Amino acid sequence: MRLLTGGKLATMDAQGADYGLVGDGAVVIDGDRIRWAGPAKDLPRDYRDAPATDLGGRLVTPGLIDCHTHLVHGGDRAREFEMRLEGASYEEIARAGGGILSSVTATRDGSDTALLETALARADHLLAEGVTTLEIKSGYGLTVEAELKMLRVARRIADARPVSVVTSWLAAHALPPEYRDNRAGYLREVVIAGLDRAHAEGLVDAVDGFCEGIAFQPDEIALVFDRATALGLPVKLHAEQLSDLGGAKLVAGYGGLSADHLEWLGQDGVAAMAAAGTVAVLLPGAFYTLRETRYPPVEALRDAGVPIALATDANPGTSPLTSILLTMNMGCTLFRLTPAEALAGVTRNAARALGLADRGRIAAGLRADLAVWDVEHPAELSYRIGFNPLYSRIFGGELV
Amino acid sequence: MRLLTGGKLATMDAQGADYGLVGDGAVVIDGDRIRWAGPAKDLPRDYRDAPATDLGGRLVTPGLIDCHTHLVHGGDRAREFEMRLEGASYEEIARAGGGILSSVTATRDGSDTALLETALARADHLLAEGVTTLEIKSGYGLTVEAELKMLRVARRIADARPVSVVTSWLAAHALPPEYRDNRAGYLREVVIAGLDRAHAEGLVDAVDGFCEGIAFQPDEIALVFDRATALGLPVKLHAEQLSDLGGAKLVAGYGGLSADHLEWLGQDGVAAMAAAGTVAVLLPGAFYTLRETRYPPVEALRDAGVPIALATDANPGTSPLTSILLTMNMGCTLFRLTPAEALAGVTRNAARALGLADRGRIAAGLRADLAVWDVEHPAELSYRIGFNPLYSRIFGGELV
Ligand SMILES: [Zn+2]
Ligand SMILES: [Zn+2]
Repeated sequence: MRLLTGGKLATMDAQGADYGLVGDGAVVIDGDRIRWAGPAKDLPRDYRDAPATDLGGRLVTPGLIDCHTHLVHGGDRAREFEMRLEGASYEEIARAGGGILSSVTATRDGSDTALLETALARADHLLAEGVTTLEIKSGYGLTVEAELKMLRVARRIADARPVSVVTSWLAAHALPPEYRDNRAGYLREVVIAGLDRAHAEGLVDAVDGFCEGIAFQPDEIALVFDRATALGLPVKLHAEQLSDLGGAKLVAGYGGLSADHLEWLGQDGVAAMAAAGTVAVLLPGAFYTLRETRYPPVEALRDAGVPIALATDANPGTSPLTSILLTMNMGCTLFRLTPAEALAGVTRNAARALGLADRGRIAAGLRADLAVWDVEHPAELSYRIGFNPLYSRIFGGELV
Repeated sequence: MRLLTGGKLATMDAQGADYGLVGDGAVVIDGDRIRWAGPAKDLPRDYRDAPATDLGGRLVTPGLIDCHTHLVHGGDRAREFEMRLEGASYEEIARAGGGILSSVTATRDGSDTALLETALARADHLLAEGVTTLEIKSGYGLTVEAELKMLRVARRIADARPVSVVTSWLAAHALPPEYRDNRAGYLREVVIAGLDRAHAEGLVDAVDGFCEGIAFQPDEIALVFDRATALGLPVKLHAEQLSDLGGAKLVAGYGGLSADHLEWLGQDGVAAMAAAGTVAVLLPGAFYTLRETRYPPVEALRDAGVPIALATDANPGTSPLTSILLTMNMGCTLFRLTPAEALAGVTRNAARALGLADRGRIAAGLRADLAVWDVEHPAELSYRIGFNPLYSRIFGGELV
């Protein structure tokens, strides 16, 4: 048992868009759990003699949660980024080996060790900003073996670092060239057969897909979700990023955890998500990188009571972003979330997007994942750009 | 004498928009200067026995230069950022003590020690990204004493950290309320009288102003520039950020070092800058934070051969940004600079914007300010978002 005192707590445990602030707060930690949290003056007598750490008035938040990443992948796309800015056409970039297939090739070719090493460098940046739970997707292998490899590497990140990793099976991310004329074959032989194998190996926490003109149609995604449901796995979806194919409604119909991106989400999608309790995961890094001009319908989501999460979408093509704090700033600056909504988006609502009831708030019984910040007010976390005021991190009750 | 071997050099010493790459490069350092730099195979015999450090193929660039910051200031504006996102009007924010005057009050009230401490925290973020030279402006004091205090604190940053600090006198930043009905008095009693004192104290490297409807008119700025010229000090100007008042032409007419912001710059301003050799300092952090939609005329600047620099504009109101790498990414993503232009913008051209001929490139005779990066290609520095691949930093010949 240990005691944290002298902290300002942003418990994120209040109703509504509020930090749930406790000015002079105390947290009692027992093993990897929070035993008690609240105003210091209400600290029960039983806990008063536990060994205490004084936080000197610093802000304590739940450990941050990045609920949508493609952190494991081979190669980078820096040269493609440069070619585009130098005026190259998409065709020229493709001829030079660019585009998503360059990431697929590099991921297929990469050894487990090499993939782990580069993913850890990226994970370390997130961890240095107080991230204690991280979602990682497959989706750059596009063969059964390479997809399995990606998720095995994802699991190894949780062994190598004090972070919880939640995996998603995203073989339905893109159609690889060898299946160009055989979409059904790809879905059957790679997406679904691979899912069965990955699930049997304990590699899959949820099943994801990319529902878009350039990727997969709703009826194709439904095949994959049907199998996920049969296996007892929750689903989520990249939906309404570049057009409105009704992906949000589809995933909500499966009681899905989240629909992600959502720039083109319509009112029927909002309503379906609200009814199903599906979280809206907004990804401002991709919006920024692609210089999108159409905004996700934040006000409609708010009005309908759809929980809003924020994530980096860390990926080599459309969001080479590995800062959760910058993601919060972008959520405010670009999407007009309030700082309290941004913080809820990387704590309480991000936990919900991952189906994790045991974290994302500072409350008795929850996992003792906490971040301590050298700031006076929680709005500073969203206000600053390219600044990391993390003071310390408590992961599963341990100061790391 | 020491030798760096096995580095890929982005010398930034080539003509045109080019990294001046040297694949297998060597750098000879003698004291705080570069004695020789070039392909390892051409290394003169005399230097071959110097104690050598192998960089293992990593990228070496000139130390980065942030040529436009307001790093020294009291307080922050996080709560104002939050109020705005919660829907408060500018009037409500002003009534709650927000806006630039809140920074002025906090800066006036702040002790030297307190101002130094918060500025160092911000500077440390820049230094951790390879910044070796930093410009810092006054402009939140708006009394002679408070402006002097700001620049004394700026100088102390160079004592406390291994970074070169270049100062700018920016008393013509805003009109303080006590001079509301006496603009001429403010210019005479604070801006010009203070400049004389600050110059006598050795606190001023250049003179800056904010030429805008909400700040000062060109004829007012001209008074300040006349005195700067009489004192032998170079000038620069915040120009054409929110409207076109002809500020760029004005500062170019004084042979100014730079015109900064420039979203509203017209073709006549471009031509005047080109003729005078005035650098265009673009500030994408302010553009991003203010959600501007009008872009600086990058193509016209390019066509006219105006050197383009990039800087953070680190300030509490419109650009609370302390990442030079993110500034490079924003320069590419938002303003469509190429990664080579972005790197030139924080090295060669940033040095020129500060009137420093002894840095910003890797070349014999220049200051040995270098940054070593864990990347394969210099485009990666601009491509990644919220990631810091700095491996080591050499400041004035010393590994720090
Ligand atoms: Zn994604
Ligand atoms: Zn400025």
